[in-house]
Amino acid sequence: MANPTAAMLVIGDEILSGRTRDANMYHLAQRLTEAGVDLCEVRVVSDKAEAIEGAVRALSAAYDVVFTSGGIGPTHDDITADCVARAMGAPIDVREDARALLASHYASRGIEFNAARMRMARIPEGATLIDNPVSVAPGFTLGNVHVMAGVPDIFEAMLASVLPTITGGRPLLSQSLRVDRGEGEIAAPLAELAADFPDLSIGCYPFQRDGAFGANVVIRGQDAGRLHAAMARLSEMFP
Amino acid sequence: MANPTAAMLVIGDEILSGRTRDANMYHLAQRLTEAGVDLCEVRVVSDKAEAIEGAVRALSAAYDVVFTSGGIGPTHDDITADCVARAMGAPIDVREDARALLASHYASRGIEFNAARMRMARIPEGATLIDNPVSVAPGFTLGNVHVMAGVPDIFEAMLASVLPTITGGRPLLSQSLRVDRGEGEIAAPLAELAADFPDLSIGCYPFQRDGAFGANVVIRGQDAGRLHAAMARLSEMFP
Repeated sequence: MANPTAAMLVIGDEILSGRTRDANMYHLAQRLTEAGVDLCEVRVVSDKAEAIEGAVRALSAAYDVVFTSGGIGPTHDDITADCVARAMGAPIDVREDARALLASHYASRGIEFNAARMRMARIPEGATLIDNPVSVAPGFTLGNVHVMAGVPDIFEAMLASVLPTITGGRPLLSQSLRVDRGEGEIAAPLAELAADFPDLSIGCYPFQRDGAFGANVVIRGQDAGRLHAAMARLSEMFP
Repeated sequence: MANPTAAMLVIGDEILSGRTRDANMYHLAQRLTEAGVDLCEVRVVSDKAEAIEGAVRALSAAYDVVFTSGGIGPTHDDITADCVARAMGAPIDVREDARALLASHYASRGIEFNAARMRMARIPEGATLIDNPVSVAPGFTLGNVHVMAGVPDIFEAMLASVLPTITGGRPLLSQSLRVDRGEGEIAAPLAELAADFPDLSIGCYPFQRDGAFGANVVIRGQDAGRLHAAMARLSEMFP
């Protein structure tokens, strides 16, 4: 059985302007690999409605599951929920369950539940809430799209609660070998190996250290036996 | 005059599998912002021909300039040059100028110029070479697409030689103010500010530190006078 396919949509001018270095993509990529879900594409778009809606439509149609990050806070540029609702053809308004969550959170802390904070209770019809153990304002799942916060610790917490609901395939295993030769010498034997093991993914990641060239060869696959066989061949090639 | 628009295409299974944390996107975003070029979209795709070609076509049509990162080495999964050529409708083969560069480099170091290394001399017709001061194998510019290496120090060196050829707009200026209040309290005044300064981009980036909520409000724009006026209003709002 093929692994489920996934895409990620990062929403945020702060990434595109270089103000912030993305952390959520890196985190998601690692968790999905462990879970046996293939992350096939990531897009980063700005806080513009057309950009967000277009990307949600394209990714939601092309992959089994989509994760979004960012744009669900209380400020004027937090438009992700409304954009996802439009892209998926769902009506959206303040929803009672989300409103109640936020109301009790703010009441218990003596914080005013104002109009800006009420924005965070806008949830599309038919969506399931995603728990936010850090600051309560929920994410949501609508169809195959999981809408999550951009703040890394909240993103990670939301992902942890969503991941078990996704039926992953077999986890991707990987092994690597450091080869102290230039990539140009590794390339031909590696192409042969790749041809003999079409079920494995074989990558070559060059580095330069103290003036010498080398590369890490990484072999990935779901079958431990095949992986070991390929690694054994690789070790013979580059003893 | 509006700033030129740009997109980036990162090619590499190693990013999507979580093995490597992207560095080139972060670097490019910062350099483009300084240069007055608006980075509008980033896509990360795997080492698959259809994925690369589709993304090159879409981004090259939608933005003034496109930067690609990765997939131009000598190994079997380095298919970027051929994919970009096909996407842009250009023939591709080993080109004499690139072959000569590589041949002299390898000859001077006593390294065999084998078939795998010859792959790096495949350059589309009509493309201009991009200098690689680190390991010689060149990138290239074809139409509005700049094809560069994925290894960060080579990517950075190639970008440095390409950037001056792109006529940037006015650099984007930014100023920020740390506000020690929850984002929900900052939101309403900030929406007012954004409405009064539609020419500026106003972002709010929440954080939580020692249990207290706060946010960095960042205002970006090309006109220093307008930026200062907006910052002054912001400081009045949150003294």
